[in-house]
Amino acid sequence: MNQLDQLAALLRFPSISAQAEHAADVSECADWLVDKLSGMGLDVNVKKYSTPKHPIVVAKSEKIEGKPTVLIYGHYDVQPVDPIELWTSAPFEPEIRDGKIFARGATDNKGQFFAHILGVEALLKENAGQLPVNVIFLLEGEEEIGSGSLYGFMKEHKEELACDVILVSDTGMAGMDAPTFSYGLRGMACAEIFVKGPSADLHSGSFGGAVKNPITALCELVNSFHDEHGKVAVAGFYDDVAPIAAWEKSMWSTVPGMSAKDLEELTGAKEVVTEDGFTAAECIYARPTLEINGMGGGYQGEGSKTIIPSNAFAKISCRLVPNQNPDVIMGLLKAHVEKHAPKGVEVKFVPGHTGDAYACDPHSEYGQAAQQALEAVFGNKPVLIREGGSIPIIAEMKKVLGADAMMLGMGLPDARIHSPNENFSVELFLKGIELSQSLLRRLGQ
Amino acid sequence: MNQLDQLAALLRFPSISAQAEHAADVSECADWLVDKLSGMGLDVNVKKYSTPKHPIVVAKSEKIEGKPTVLIYGHYDVQPVDPIELWTSAPFEPEIRDGKIFARGATDNKGQFFAHILGVEALLKENAGQLPVNVIFLLEGEEEIGSGSLYGFMKEHKEELACDVILVSDTGMAGMDAPTFSYGLRGMACAEIFVKGPSADLHSGSFGGAVKNPITALCELVNSFHDEHGKVAVAGFYDDVAPIAAWEKSMWSTVPGMSAKDLEELTGAKEVVTEDGFTAAECIYARPTLEINGMGGGYQGEGSKTIIPSNAFAKISCRLVPNQNPDVIMGLLKAHVEKHAPKGVEVKFVPGHTGDAYACDPHSEYGQAAQQALEAVFGNKPVLIREGGSIPIIAEMKKVLGADAMMLGMGLPDARIHSPNENFSVELFLKGIELSQSLLRRLGQ
Repeated sequence: MNQLDQLAALLRFPSISAQAEHAADVSECADWLVDKLSGMGLDVNVKKYSTPKHPIVVAKSEKIEGKPTVLIYGHYDVQPVDPIELWTSAPFEPEIRDGKIFARGATDNKGQFFAHILGVEALLKENAGQLPVNVIFLLEGEEEIGSGSLYGFMKEHKEELACDVILVSDTGMAGMDAPTFSYGLRGMACAEIFVKGPSADLHSGSFGGAVKNPITALCELVNSFHDEHGKVAVAGFYDDVAPIAAWEKSMWSTVPGMSAKDLEELTGAKEVVTEDGFTAAECIYARPTLEINGMGGGYQGEGSKTIIPSNAFAKISCRLVPNQNPDVIMGLLKAHVEKHAPKGVEVKFVPGHTGDAYACDPHSEYGQAAQQALEAVFGNKPVLIREGGSIPIIAEMKKVLGADAMMLGMGLPDARIHSPNENFSVELFLKGIELSQSLLRRLGQ
Repeated sequence: MNQLDQLAALLRFPSISAQAEHAADVSECADWLVDKLSGMGLDVNVKKYSTPKHPIVVAKSEKIEGKPTVLIYGHYDVQPVDPIELWTSAPFEPEIRDGKIFARGATDNKGQFFAHILGVEALLKENAGQLPVNVIFLLEGEEEIGSGSLYGFMKEHKEELACDVILVSDTGMAGMDAPTFSYGLRGMACAEIFVKGPSADLHSGSFGGAVKNPITALCELVNSFHDEHGKVAVAGFYDDVAPIAAWEKSMWSTVPGMSAKDLEELTGAKEVVTEDGFTAAECIYARPTLEINGMGGGYQGEGSKTIIPSNAFAKISCRLVPNQNPDVIMGLLKAHVEKHAPKGVEVKFVPGHTGDAYACDPHSEYGQAAQQALEAVFGNKPVLIREGGSIPIIAEMKKVLGADAMMLGMGLPDARIHSPNENFSVELFLKGIELSQSLLRRLGQ
């Protein structure tokens, strides 16, 4: 099978970690990776570890003394697919259109980590099974739900995973001609809010006027999360936020595709709206947010149903930045919800998963090697950004393994990760394979 | 078949007018009524009229000169059933438990109008096909979606439907021992609000901070509908609201089951919340409301999905009182939504169905006959209330046919109309049959 067909095979697994009915698909995807990694010459050291939830796959090259060890991290689980009706082709039947391969997980993250697997495979072939560095693949199946199992796993397998630097391609790329080195990530704090009104839906005529409507109550609560300047109005929310350095502001002002006009065209949003006093790039890279990811209550079907609903809920998530502590933020959120709970209803706050923000020095020795490899493969100087997204495990790896991460993201702005019609550029996939080889060679010198 | 089995047969039709897939069920329910009315001796004058949507059934007794004509109105369509999982027995498989028959439509409205059909059948039997008054049954299939077809139908069939007074049992009853005469109804104005943000769901990390979240925007809008005193904050909303008379305030303070404690027990709401300065009874009977009947947006499935959703919507409905004009209110709502539309998103306001509020004099000649019949059957003086619910067609009948309505409701507070486990007291059903006979006899004297 050629490299693209192999990617398509990987993309066919509906490995949605958030949905219980897909647990078997996640596990089968892990088996497929074990076969692939074993077949390419890492066979003696490929293991599928079962965890309380989804499997973790580890593959190691034969240890060469005196060479640095590079841990290549990726995740083979994917986001849910709904709204399914907005997909042009089925999310798990990869289809190539306009030089892109369309499938859930194409960019986030199967296409990106698989490029590294194929890069290592090429190096193994070219040097009769010898790699320029020691390589450890660490592939998990729970990134989209908070990497729950990997935290404990890393601590248990600290020695097995010992490394000098971490290589991750699970972040954004400013554009095809703008190779991107990410040196920071936002953290995360997820939660759900449940509002209970009457014990059953009520006739809005027979009772309307005397009973608090749980949707109205939830809207009051949600509305209390932000002020009129686009700032999060949760007390203490910004207390620990690290300021943005001058060199970052000027570097970020040059990143392609980050102007209001560019973002409006890209997203289809009527108008870019940012926190007062910050550019879109600054808000996405280095300012915290509080988003409502989903909300529901009452009658959502066809026609009208004149009720006072029994309950309503909202799913919220905060993106955090250095040096916010997710547990502290979760406490502030809980306190805010309790303080602003409207009368007449019962409000329940259920904390979800959290993750630390992360930042490292892009000018380190490893960082410079990465920038050189990017320039060699793409022909342009890389832009240095912080990623708006979250890979909480990166911060944890720093803590447990003591290694920093080179984040060489290949997620283009129109890759539609987490959205219908997620896709990955075929050209980028092939360049990713080159990049992997170029970088590992440099690190071996 | 005994009377209760006949009611059960009628309740088995899933005649949900709001859902297109049930159109055939609605029509079959009308056929069943035609057969029933024909079989009991009104055969020459029973007609099923097709309309742009759901059929209208009319049945007339042979005209007797010098006797008043009573038009008995009812609706055989029902509300949707969801949340289906909260039903103890299936909504369209009637089941008798604790002296109540459980089914969607049991109280609203099949059980109540069918009692009048059986009352008239009894009178026909006892006087060899002679009734003490002229009777016209008018049964529609669109009440739960605004009676769209009936308005035009009444104008076209003005002569056929000419009557002196209207008899309707589709309203509330304060309690088993509190026969209830309703002399007013609230009106209605329904609408939907759609908020569009980005053209597809976005990754909340890659874009969070630069794009307005449509759920957040919708919550801001919904929050703008009420002030902190529980009043509707739409400009001009209360301008035409008729004040509550002193005799009404004192009568309503005696209605059983309307204390805050009673309503809290009945609804399971944590605390009764009313508009400042009004009792629960006053708010339900004679104050307008704005309710959110349903709201949705983003990811509502299992687990978390960290997106900025593409859109969100809300279904709203206002209950109106004399002398508010629904069209004027709809205009005020539209203006409010346009004025408060948050920036960064597109907001669409879609007007829905409307209906006038209604009130008549409960002390008229017909009103007194109704009060006597209620006292005769139930053994207690009736309470005089205004109904919180809406039967917009009643106001229209007054306009087109010039007749007022005697609303002798048998909807008990725990009948759960519009909710899971809707039910109708078997004892009440049998008393309703008596009431019909007693009242028609009095009107014939």
